[in-house]
Amino acid sequence: MTERVRQILSCYESENPGVKASLARMLNHGTLAGTGRMVILPVDQGFEHGAARSFAPNPPGYDPHYHFRLAIEAGCNAYAAPLGLLEAGARDYAGEIPLILKVNNSDSLTSEREPNEAVTSSVGEALRLGCAAIGFTIYPGSAHQFEMFSQVRQYAEEAKRAGLAVVIWSYPRGSALSKEGESAVDVVGYAAQIAAQLGAHIIKVKLPTAFLEEAAAKKVYLEQKIPIGTQAERVRHITDCAFAGRRIVIFSGGAAVFDDNKLLDEIRAIKEGGGFGSIIGRNSFQRQRKDALKMLGEVMSIYEGK
Amino acid sequence: MTERVRQILSCYESENPGVKASLARMLNHGTLAGTGRMVILPVDQGFEHGAARSFAPNPPGYDPHYHFRLAIEAGCNAYAAPLGLLEAGARDYAGEIPLILKVNNSDSLTSEREPNEAVTSSVGEALRLGCAAIGFTIYPGSAHQFEMFSQVRQYAEEAKRAGLAVVIWSYPRGSALSKEGESAVDVVGYAAQIAAQLGAHIIKVKLPTAFLEEAAAKKVYLEQKIPIGTQAERVRHITDCAFAGRRIVIFSGGAAVFDDNKLLDEIRAIKEGGGFGSIIGRNSFQRQRKDALKMLGEVMSIYEGK
Amino acid sequence: MTERVRQILSCYESENPGVKASLARMLNHGTLAGTGRMVILPVDQGFEHGAARSFAPNPPGYDPHYHFRLAIEAGCNAYAAPLGLLEAGARDYAGEIPLILKVNNSDSLTSEREPNEAVTSSVGEALRLGCAAIGFTIYPGSAHQFEMFSQVRQYAEEAKRAGLAVVIWSYPRGSALSKEGESAVDVVGYAAQIAAQLGAHIIKVKLPTAFLEEAAAKKVYLEQKIPIGTQAERVRHITDCAFAGRRIVIFSGGAAVFDDNKLLDEIRAIKEGGGFGSIIGRNSFQRQRKDALKMLGEVMSIYEGK
Amino acid sequence: MTERVRQILSCYESENPGVKASLARMLNHGTLAGTGRMVILPVDQGFEHGAARSFAPNPPGYDPHYHFRLAIEAGCNAYAAPLGLLEAGARDYAGEIPLILKVNNSDSLTSEREPNEAVTSSVGEALRLGCAAIGFTIYPGSAHQFEMFSQVRQYAEEAKRAGLAVVIWSYPRGSALSKEGESAVDVVGYAAQIAAQLGAHIIKVKLPTAFLEEAAAKKVYLEQKIPIGTQAERVRHITDCAFAGRRIVIFSGGAAVFDDNKLLDEIRAIKEGGGFGSIIGRNSFQRQRKDALKMLGEVMSIYEGK
Amino acid sequence: MTERVRQILSCYESENPGVKASLARMLNHGTLAGTGRMVILPVDQGFEHGAARSFAPNPPGYDPHYHFRLAIEAGCNAYAAPLGLLEAGARDYAGEIPLILKVNNSDSLTSEREPNEAVTSSVGEALRLGCAAIGFTIYPGSAHQFEMFSQVRQYAEEAKRAGLAVVIWSYPRGSALSKEGESAVDVVGYAAQIAAQLGAHIIKVKLPTAFLEEAAAKKVYLEQKIPIGTQAERVRHITDCAFAGRRIVIFSGGAAVFDDNKLLDEIRAIKEGGGFGSIIGRNSFQRQRKDALKMLGEVMSIYEGK
Repeated sequence: MTERVRQILSCYESENPGVKASLARMLNHGTLAGTGRMVILPVDQGFEHGAARSFAPNPPGYDPHYHFRLAIEAGCNAYAAPLGLLEAGARDYAGEIPLILKVNNSDSLTSEREPNEAVTSSVGEALRLGCAAIGFTIYPGSAHQFEMFSQVRQYAEEAKRAGLAVVIWSYPRGSALSKEGESAVDVVGYAAQIAAQLGAHIIKVKLPTAFLEEAAAKKVYLEQKIPIGTQAERVRHITDCAFAGRRIVIFSGGAAVFDDNKLLDEIRAIKEGGGFGSIIGRNSFQRQRKDALKMLGEVMSIYEGK
Repeated sequence: MTERVRQILSCYESENPGVKASLARMLNHGTLAGTGRMVILPVDQGFEHGAARSFAPNPPGYDPHYHFRLAIEAGCNAYAAPLGLLEAGARDYAGEIPLILKVNNSDSLTSEREPNEAVTSSVGEALRLGCAAIGFTIYPGSAHQFEMFSQVRQYAEEAKRAGLAVVIWSYPRGSALSKEGESAVDVVGYAAQIAAQLGAHIIKVKLPTAFLEEAAAKKVYLEQKIPIGTQAERVRHITDCAFAGRRIVIFSGGAAVFDDNKLLDEIRAIKEGGGFGSIIGRNSFQRQRKDALKMLGEVMSIYEGK
Repeated sequence: MTERVRQILSCYESENPGVKASLARMLNHGTLAGTGRMVILPVDQGFEHGAARSFAPNPPGYDPHYHFRLAIEAGCNAYAAPLGLLEAGARDYAGEIPLILKVNNSDSLTSEREPNEAVTSSVGEALRLGCAAIGFTIYPGSAHQFEMFSQVRQYAEEAKRAGLAVVIWSYPRGSALSKEGESAVDVVGYAAQIAAQLGAHIIKVKLPTAFLEEAAAKKVYLEQKIPIGTQAERVRHITDCAFAGRRIVIFSGGAAVFDDNKLLDEIRAIKEGGGFGSIIGRNSFQRQRKDALKMLGEVMSIYEGK
Repeated sequence: MTERVRQILSCYESENPGVKASLARMLNHGTLAGTGRMVILPVDQGFEHGAARSFAPNPPGYDPHYHFRLAIEAGCNAYAAPLGLLEAGARDYAGEIPLILKVNNSDSLTSEREPNEAVTSSVGEALRLGCAAIGFTIYPGSAHQFEMFSQVRQYAEEAKRAGLAVVIWSYPRGSALSKEGESAVDVVGYAAQIAAQLGAHIIKVKLPTAFLEEAAAKKVYLEQKIPIGTQAERVRHITDCAFAGRRIVIFSGGAAVFDDNKLLDEIRAIKEGGGFGSIIGRNSFQRQRKDALKMLGEVMSIYEGK
Repeated sequence: MTERVRQILSCYESENPGVKASLARMLNHGTLAGTGRMVILPVDQGFEHGAARSFAPNPPGYDPHYHFRLAIEAGCNAYAAPLGLLEAGARDYAGEIPLILKVNNSDSLTSEREPNEAVTSSVGEALRLGCAAIGFTIYPGSAHQFEMFSQVRQYAEEAKRAGLAVVIWSYPRGSALSKEGESAVDVVGYAAQIAAQLGAHIIKVKLPTAFLEEAAAKKVYLEQKIPIGTQAERVRHITDCAFAGRRIVIFSGGAAVFDDNKLLDEIRAIKEGGGFGSIIGRNSFQRQRKDALKMLGEVMSIYEGK
């Protein structure tokens, strides 16, 4: 157990030993084991966008085993996916990589405008499959946000009692927010705060832009001169918003870019700003395996400070 | 136990022995026992369209025992029906054919536009009636889809704990989809993926057309040159969408056609494309018994490769 | 135990001995005991239309004991009423007549347009009051139909486990149906089918007219030349729709007619068509006791074949 | 135990000894003990209209203890109030007067038009506070009526099992009713019937006017010549509507009148018509204590027949 | 145990020893221990307005430990916060200050107009974290008010059984109220009454203005000449509305003012009017620590009567 991991775990002071052990399983696994940094492979795109849009660019990805192997070989800290995908590999790869069961999901077939998710799995299933954590998406700002928060309440309480860690994907979205506002630094900071207040152990947010969405917030950012000019400053601000660094905050980069320089620059900014790591989905599994391993290796090298 | 069935069961790696045994009961029953192919007789038309529309074309079908006998004599792998129909024959034909309790149902009397189903039975009832599986319909794309997914979540979890298999009828429908789009290959593939992600063991979808419904999906199909020109190619693509063949996908043909050549061509395409089988309702019970047995016999011969 | 009752009970093949005994209690009680026919006295009009509209035409009916005595003296097979009415006589007349607790109810004070009912009692209350069955109204076609079906699901499952029979009043109603359509033969047949599929042991429907409501159904009735010209033919068709005679179907006549010839003609048609009996409310309790006993006696004589 | 009380209790024939004892506690308490008549002090005005509107006219009423003492000293049969008010005196006055916990409540701050109530307490709380009964308000005719009936179902079943009596305040209200119709004799009679059917032991309704609201009912009242010309006749009709006198029906007088002659005339009419008593809130606690005691004494004298 | 605290506790006469002990923990902690007055530090601004708007004015406040230390060093009676904030300090400061877990919360990202809150924590979590009380916000007047009241019902009952005190933040809000009306003295008095009726032990309301919102109430205030001219008179009236002083009522001052004279004048009025204390959030943690300690010290000196 490194000093850094011990220090991170101490921030989760009120949790039982089971939860701490689950967090430790993730922090102490893979290439970044012990560094306090995390890179997680998430594969919920099949549910969110359909199988063809997700896997046709790299057809081996149709097979659930591919993602287990990719996460293991790349040295990720954990692999996150919905129920079906985990069921289809959890026994064959049991013990080889910490698993995060994504317990709610959405799809893109509906005409509904206020973002929402269906609860598709449970804490009981996470335990059955040997997971280290559950993952839950919330959409702060949606007309459905309060139902989602209340659902998190129930799932998180049950998960913690069972010694599982709780990961919240916090994505502000809804009719009160502009498209640009969804990744505005004030809004992302607010999203991180809400996830922390709901009791998340690990918080996943978008990498924020310098845009300021809300008038009342903008006033404060300008008056208080909160530094948000560089990506690293914005990352630091977001970790401040998540209990001043007492909660693990990791960042996603959105759609597949295929401009690895841009991607790696973002990683450098996250590291410099004190972010805890990344969650990299489409940029990992929508390219060929060898390219994915190369890219993920470079990402981890940056986090290791090599 | 044939090698093929053993191989199929191995794909359900995370399930308990009870679930595997239930899947095996179906795979090892009837004419196709041991081949890894399945033909299921479903009779939920009485609920969906009314008794007269369903059974007047072949009046013995008003009697629930008729369908048990038809499924048994035709050598089907399983018989699927709502609560009442199963209650009306489950003792007299106990042990003669694996049963699938269809636990949700709809009817055609309502003026509601967003497709929905009522939960009409339970896992407890399936156990009381000696079933091998529960069946659940979802309508991805409907305004009610998330409630349905959450209901599946609860039922599937309970069923698996009790050693029952889970069959999902996945029919995209709703105001965001065109009529043609309901059987578009991209949409059917998405439907298969969602069912797999929800933890289905057996997935029933419509036989897809070559139409592409969603703009974002169409772009990928064209760019990646996914082969969908022939029916067999489309079937293969759909099984890819269901975890690259790790989940049993079976196909329905829709309304009664009475053009058996067309029907048998479809079966050949399903076989050639690697589909696991068919679920044939109205084409079975809306013709006279001897004609139904003949047709089902031909279907099974194709799947057997005779 | 007569052969006919034994035969009827054998159709409920999957039920436990408790449910069969409850059905037998009703089939073997009163004037029609052992004949396989039933006449039930239902008194839920007080809830549905108010006390004065229900009982002022025959004021002794304000008193709950009146109806118990009427049902007993008339030799009915069972007496059906809401919670309050049964509570007000269940001890004094305990063991003298099988009781059916009507567990959901509606009233006519509301301005709501989609028909609905409130759940007003429970299986536990039915057991406390010594009932043989619970009664549940569904409105197929209503915007609330799926909630009602799901509620039946729960109540019926619990009732069967407790050895109670399940009676469903199946009345199609709602904005998709015309007023005339509510008693159209295709719609009533569909209603009987839905009740049977939901697991009802006894199904109560309206006596159907020769009208055909739904276009898709009309086409089938005409093409298949389903005989629906006479009342007896329509009754036979409805029992076909309820699992080809495997479920007890009884008929109501609607509002008080006071034209007993018409009423008795209907009974003859029900008998001739193979219907299992009648449920006669307002025509029983809205006339003087001696007239009611006379009329019910005549009805039973017809069913007895005297 | 007087003959009259014994007779009244015998009407609750299906209840367990605990419920009968709770009813007896109320019938045998205070000035009217043993007469079969009841006067109840209800204080839910603070919740319904706010503290100042309720208590400023007689400021000692701000203090919860005041109402306990008023009910005790006036010799009322019971004191009814919401959770908070009972909690604030239940220990100091334990055993001195039967308590009715009003378990649902409304307030007048909202802009909602369809009348509704919040469930604010429970059977468990009633037991903890030593109550003899729970009180529940329903609004027949409201768009929320069915939810309320279903809630009563659950609460009443639980209360009866625990040996508590059930009091229903039945106030028809909602967009289908005119203001005048809310106290029309047909509507009040219907309200009494619904409460009785829901299983109430004690039914509280408004003193009805001779107005007839509903067309279908009006026809019957006129045809059957139901006597409703005098207040006493209307009271008798209402008790008929509540199972022909088998249920305790008590009447409220509405807003504070301060015309005691009118109030006492109403009491005389209730007595003459066979009503079981009164529930007098604002007319009791919105005047000075000595005036309230005088007025309540006169009311009780009338009921005693002095 | 001082006489004053003993007297206050005696007002909670129906509560179990556990609840009384929890109230005593708060009343006997900090600078005001034993005086019967309370100053509570609440920090739910991060959830309500976002982290930057809440903490950028005094950046150490991003760290959850800061608020624990501030509350302890300032000698507050209790510290109130949502789940996440308490989890992030509850072990390190265990036993140093009574904690109130704020179990429901809102945020300002939504476009919804009727005020509402999400349930974000539970009684079980409050016990796990060693809290003395749960805190619950209600919005009387909102279209969601009845759901909130019913939720309080459930939480308060469970909390009391577990020996926890119940604090209700009662903020009238919603489309039926004007902005000015939200702090009108009639409305605030009504809010205090509702909270008391719901069973709150400690009631938090806004400091009321002399404005009168509701016509029906205004009439009574004027007729009865209720003294509301001075702030102290209004405070006294509000405590009257909360069971004539039998419930602890504390006041909030709203947004940060930074005009300490105004703030301290308000405290003097609360004291003079018999209010039990204050809950001071943004005015405490949005200024530098030494300024906050100075201000809170002055507030407490006023309450102590120094």
